[in-house]
Amino acid sequence: MAPHPLQTLSIEETRIARDVILSLHPDVVIDFREIYLQEPAKGFMKMYLELEHSAHLSPTSPRPPRLAKCQYDVIGADRIPEYNESVVDVEKRERVKHEIVGKEFQAALTLWEFDILLEACKRSEMFQEAVKELRLPEGFELVVEPWPYGGLDLGAENRRYFQGLCFAQDMSSGNPDSNYYAYPLPLIPILDAHKKEIIRVDKLATGGKDDPLTGKTHAESILDHCQSSEYIPELLEGGTRKDLKPINITQPEGPSFTVINDSLVEWQKWRFRISFNPREGAVLHDIHYDGRSILYRLSMSEMSVPYCDPRPPFHRKQAFDFGDGGAGNCANNLSLGCDCLGMIKYLDGVLIDSTGEPRVHPNVICLHEQDNGIGWKHTGWKTNRAVVTRYRELVVQFIITLANYEYVFAYKFDQAGGITIEVRATGIVSVVNIDPGKTSDYGNVVSGGVLAQNHQHIFCARIDPAIDGHNNSVMYEESHTAPWDKETNPNGNLYLVKKTVVERSAGLDAAPQHNRVFKILNPSKKNPVSGNPVAYKFTPPPTQKILASPGSIQSQRALFAQHHVWVTKYRDDELYAAGRFTMQSQIEKGGVKDMVERDEGVTNEDVVLWSVFGLTHNPRVEDWPVMPVEIFQLGFRPADFFKRNPAIDVPSSRNESSVLVVREKCCVE
Amino acid sequence: MAPHPLQTLSIEETRIARDVILSLHPDVVIDFREIYLQEPAKGFMKMYLELEHSAHLSPTSPRPPRLAKCQYDVIGADRIPEYNESVVDVEKRERVKHEIVGKEFQAALTLWEFDILLEACKRSEMFQEAVKELRLPEGFELVVEPWPYGGLDLGAENRRYFQGLCFAQDMSSGNPDSNYYAYPLPLIPILDAHKKEIIRVDKLATGGKDDPLTGKTHAESILDHCQSSEYIPELLEGGTRKDLKPINITQPEGPSFTVINDSLVEWQKWRFRISFNPREGAVLHDIHYDGRSILYRLSMSEMSVPYCDPRPPFHRKQAFDFGDGGAGNCANNLSLGCDCLGMIKYLDGVLIDSTGEPRVHPNVICLHEQDNGIGWKHTGWKTNRAVVTRYRELVVQFIITLANYEYVFAYKFDQAGGITIEVRATGIVSVVNIDPGKTSDYGNVVSGGVLAQNHQHIFCARIDPAIDGHNNSVMYEESHTAPWDKETNPNGNLYLVKKTVVERSAGLDAAPQHNRVFKILNPSKKNPVSGNPVAYKFTPPPTQKILASPGSIQSQRALFAQHHVWVTKYRDDELYAAGRFTMQSQIEKGGVKDMVERDEGVTNEDVVLWSVFGLTHNPRVEDWPVMPVEIFQLGFRPADFFKRNPAIDVPSSRNESSVLVVREKCCVE
Repeated sequence: MAPHPLQTLSIEETRIARDVILSLHPDVVIDFREIYLQEPAKGFMKMYLELEHSAHLSPTSPRPPRLAKCQYDVIGADRIPEYNESVVDVEKRERVKHEIVGKEFQAALTLWEFDILLEACKRSEMFQEAVKELRLPEGFELVVEPWPYGGLDLGAENRRYFQGLCFAQDMSSGNPDSNYYAYPLPLIPILDAHKKEIIRVDKLATGGKDDPLTGKTHAESILDHCQSSEYIPELLEGGTRKDLKPINITQPEGPSFTVINDSLVEWQKWRFRISFNPREGAVLHDIHYDGRSILYRLSMSEMSVPYCDPRPPFHRKQAFDFGDGGAGNCANNLSLGCDCLGMIKYLDGVLIDSTGEPRVHPNVICLHEQDNGIGWKHTGWKTNRAVVTRYRELVVQFIITLANYEYVFAYKFDQAGGITIEVRATGIVSVVNIDPGKTSDYGNVVSGGVLAQNHQHIFCARIDPAIDGHNNSVMYEESHTAPWDKETNPNGNLYLVKKTVVERSAGLDAAPQHNRVFKILNPSKKNPVSGNPVAYKFTPPPTQKILASPGSIQSQRALFAQHHVWVTKYRDDELYAAGRFTMQSQIEKGGVKDMVERDEGVTNEDVVLWSVFGLTHNPRVEDWPVMPVEIFQLGFRPADFFKRNPAIDVPSSRNESSVLVVREKCCVE
Repeated sequence: MAPHPLQTLSIEETRIARDVILSLHPDVVIDFREIYLQEPAKGFMKMYLELEHSAHLSPTSPRPPRLAKCQYDVIGADRIPEYNESVVDVEKRERVKHEIVGKEFQAALTLWEFDILLEACKRSEMFQEAVKELRLPEGFELVVEPWPYGGLDLGAENRRYFQGLCFAQDMSSGNPDSNYYAYPLPLIPILDAHKKEIIRVDKLATGGKDDPLTGKTHAESILDHCQSSEYIPELLEGGTRKDLKPINITQPEGPSFTVINDSLVEWQKWRFRISFNPREGAVLHDIHYDGRSILYRLSMSEMSVPYCDPRPPFHRKQAFDFGDGGAGNCANNLSLGCDCLGMIKYLDGVLIDSTGEPRVHPNVICLHEQDNGIGWKHTGWKTNRAVVTRYRELVVQFIITLANYEYVFAYKFDQAGGITIEVRATGIVSVVNIDPGKTSDYGNVVSGGVLAQNHQHIFCARIDPAIDGHNNSVMYEESHTAPWDKETNPNGNLYLVKKTVVERSAGLDAAPQHNRVFKILNPSKKNPVSGNPVAYKFTPPPTQKILASPGSIQSQRALFAQHHVWVTKYRDDELYAAGRFTMQSQIEKGGVKDMVERDEGVTNEDVVLWSVFGLTHNPRVEDWPVMPVEIFQLGFRPADFFKRNPAIDVPSSRNESSVLVVREKCCVE
């Protein structure tokens, strides 16, 4: 049976695509970057899904072609590699699209490019000399952590660079996981990735308040005032706590969900598909509840992490974790009983190496159910009878690690028709060396000699709705005090709900003071009870937008971070809030801002919503050495979509495994 | 052994207090309202707790007296009952304080006052006549739901009133829990509680858009267009869903917490006391982590639910669920495996009846541990070794039902030194009758003939901090874009953290656009790592404030709802954000606004914070017939209080009960 058009490319399909590309470029070296599913054009998919959902799909039904997007460098002698993107029809084994990407753009990084930096550092006399000057104490070893170069300075030649953040690792324990972030070194080597050479070593200021932005101000012995800050249990100062008893989560009758072909998920009236790609990680498609369409596609689109430290070259600390590195590329291989408790279904991804050879990236997505407390409850006061149901969720989770930081992304479905996007930020804050006894306006001292720089995490979720069909409108509602008036509001208690339809593509903001709620509605379909158009709603979290000055490179390359909500008209292949190319960008191109500037009508159209939210993270000492999760949630809830609470039919049965704490187990009188 | 000074009054102590009061009022009838612990003066408690925490407490140590606050009506012949509040020293069996409360205030209601309304309705010819005019269909029975009268109209005599919301219950099934909210009747009988008579029956407008505010506009047959809307499983249309498999949560080694004397809780370095009183429900005291003081007292102080419908008498729909009814009085008796899963410890309360006779109110608080996903994680990129810990919480939960609505309150402690206050709103939205086919600007039609009126829920948590001691200061921090300047900010990426100390008592607001974070700090104690004062922080949720017009009675009686954060100087007995007396109030007296107007210095003082947050609830059809929980969370987190992440020592051990979903259980290929 042919794979579903939204199914992740298989190992075999990936190999075919690779071979087609190799055959088309016979006399050069091809360095592959990514091969993954080029999703079908929506026009075709609409027809296909209509057949699928009406059970009219047959082996002879028209199917969109299986397409592979292939990203690769063509390497000739003595010139800068040429970055190509091709689309290959896997079934026909032919290329259907080919683009040589202009030199103004840089391809996303691959993890094997990091090795080039590490090798070049080893070879670079300039760099080795700079390290030697620091006179690392005995037993300490140098660690160079590869980072994208951030935004290219104005006027700089757009060659491909990487920067290395440097630390020293205390190897006296012999443990390779000793926490080297506790010993930051004031050096950043810069790699020219084409030359594969270190072209510069930036020396970092290590001063504090009132010290100049540049210049060597640090102590002679750069690590004397630093301290061990271990987090792995066998090195942890004081050891781990001993009095935590296990909580076991079991499902003796099995899970309530089914997964077909590692792709189609059914759970509690929900039905959707999961795919995985190197840039966005887990992507959800064709989300239905009880046979009704809600979303065409749901994904995390981008995030940016700009750092506020004004001392050059720290202004280039600004990661785009999806556009630069790829959330799928950086996805963790999840582990039973650690990342997920209970009954777990794992899904694998497919990634390639630089030869285009695919391999399974195991356990990159986990699915499980969880109990989230009370779902709804009412006690009748006349009879004192309580009916109480639990809030069950299905969680689709993936976790990424980008150097020091980790992010836990989860799409959570509930029985009341709600979808919650959850992001947890954890991992290790990015740190630099600071002189003994000094403090800084640019961050917080979280350990001896360790300055955790202030920064922001700004996320963008892409919501491609299909509320009972593909033609939708967007409206926002606000609640406003009404004028106190003898006729219409004699006691001054009236407030009115003001509705504003978004007519043209736009960037809009949260307005919690007005209780601004966005609704995505189908103007052609009314709720039979209320008479309102069927809709889903979400309240944009009013988190702080990007703080870098307007016009600065940090700000320009993350124009998406200027608004909380963007409403655009759908076009195929427009998936990325900050544009296709973020590596070394000086300005966001082809991102949401550009889409909005087309000034298109977005009423009763195929619209896309982009929700931007984040965290201004001024680190606490408690964020060290690994920070406790910071949790954000974005809720997407039905609003007159259904005819009653969709969870009203959840059984209120008592869980029989719950027990009273017996006195001797916890209580002393 | 004598009870701890913060221990809830026992049955025996309550009886002593009752008897003392009865002996002091020999020739009159005493109608008791409440008897509960009058908490010791803080001055005394500070000394006591210092001895307790330094293990210097001995049987001869000075102890504050055990005091009972007694609230009761003194009933003489032919006059309005006189409301009294006395404080009785239980050990000495003598009254130490007595106050006859002025007639301008109304005591909080007792549940047995509701019976007076119901009886009076039965006796009232006027009311019975009005009901008869509605010609209820056969098989329907009248239900009168008692409500407080709301804010007294200006100029009205301050007698004690109650209002009754009327519904019809379809008794054709014989089931006494058939949902009568589906059949609202356009009548509100008004009780004079002293006369015990219905003095008026307000006829309600049932019109829609463009109909006048008053006047009978409804259809002849008031229930013909209403529909059955059942939620109890045996009456539910379509029955309950059958495909939900159980999730079992077990702790084979027992819980990780201990509870001593049903009061002192120890869990994962946390130590605190729980008490219970009829007004605030569960209250937490003397909260320590790892031997260090964090909070002196934590409670939900008040909430107000104003409705926006301008049609008289709906402006009087405004409940103060703590001040009017008492959260402790309305607390549910919780049920194993329903309200709480896993290993549960229940605590009881003590309530009295009108004779002052105490009885145990069982299972009003539950304690349990829960897993809340990943707590912190880091994967070293050099070794690919992941260390991942779970986010364990201890939950102290109580649930209240007030007529149609329920609220689930939880104090959640975590291993990273955090406390989260969680509120879940569920239950049945308040509804009125609306004519067939009409819609309204004042709410949403959620079922045939049923208009769910727009309203707000505005909560206030009271936080009495003791950050490493009782003298604390409050500061708020904001993050602001810095000027783009060649010298100090050459690349425009700098933002600066602006700190503002709150010098005088004040009402303040959330400012998410500036990432405004409030810190409660101890100015006398510095964090040895960062050099900052030790502190806890919280970010006030920027939820919409009260919408009723300034100066309106709805707005005046909830002045606390005008700001997100209030900072006041501590005084004994100032526990209630909207003042001691909210029943029928026209203006908030003795609430946070009055406290702030004392204009006291609040730096390095015993300060109190009040956090106001809520929900503007414009109902959806999906909120019917019982609404899915709406969840709010207020996080209280250490900020340079500790020397590292306090959860860094949580073991990262694998949970051995987690299993892979086996193919036949969930997957079809």
